[in-house]
Amino acid sequence: MSNHPEAPVAPVEAYEPPYYVAVFTAVRTEDQSGYSKTNARMEALVKDIPGYLGMDYAQTPGGLAITVGYFRDADALKQWQSNAEHRAAQKRGQAEWYQSYTLHVAKVERSHGFTRA
Amino acid sequence: MSNHPEAPVAPVEAYEPPYYVAVFTAVRTEDQSGYSKTNARMEALVKDIPGYLGMDYAQTPGGLAITVGYFRDADALKQWQSNAEHRAAQKRGQAEWYQSYTLHVAKVERSHGFTRA
Repeated sequence: MSNHPEAPVAPVEAYEPPYYVAVFTAVRTEDQSGYSKTNARMEALVKDIPGYLGMDYAQTPGGLAITVGYFRDADALKQWQSNAEHRAAQKRGQAEWYQSYTLHVAKVERSHGFTRA
Repeated sequence: MSNHPEAPVAPVEAYEPPYYVAVFTAVRTEDQSGYSKTNARMEALVKDIPGYLGMDYAQTPGGLAITVGYFRDADALKQWQSNAEHRAAQKRGQAEWYQSYTLHVAKVERSHGFTRA
């Protein structure tokens, strides 16, 4: 649920496990009216969740969009998923913006990063 | 490590948990010589791993690339990660194709999908 047009291009870092990832893979519909505004609001809202660690987003033009949200623990993720505005946005997404999607919620067991010297 | 130019645009389905995801988020370098060929080989190789469930890929032009691999269990993922050709490709990726990346390996606890009627 994020376009991050303003963000620097860098992946979210590898945190110390355990932490949680919410992997959201979606195909959008053609009519994206209202999406950007709602998306910006969601980006602002999620940052207020204690334990929110960050988000990665990529979209192939005309293809798949993948959003990965990172959370310190299951409670932080639960708080975000039960947020009333977020739930309303999800319902609108099903009605208007998404052709199909899958959500995978997973507990990270190990992670590492690489940055070119 | 996948472009999936030939694949139909649909996210990998929600399997019955538990299963594993390997979330690979990367920023590429400018010189991608040899990447496509190696990537095609990796796509062919991973399909031979017992317990390989599928892969999602998205890349924002000039931006982040996200690959999510799905595996039935930790052993299947371990088998892929210890594959000699795969390891050689990872080393070449660090030397040539990636500016930075993060890998998160996680055990899926719940998942669900949506498809428009």
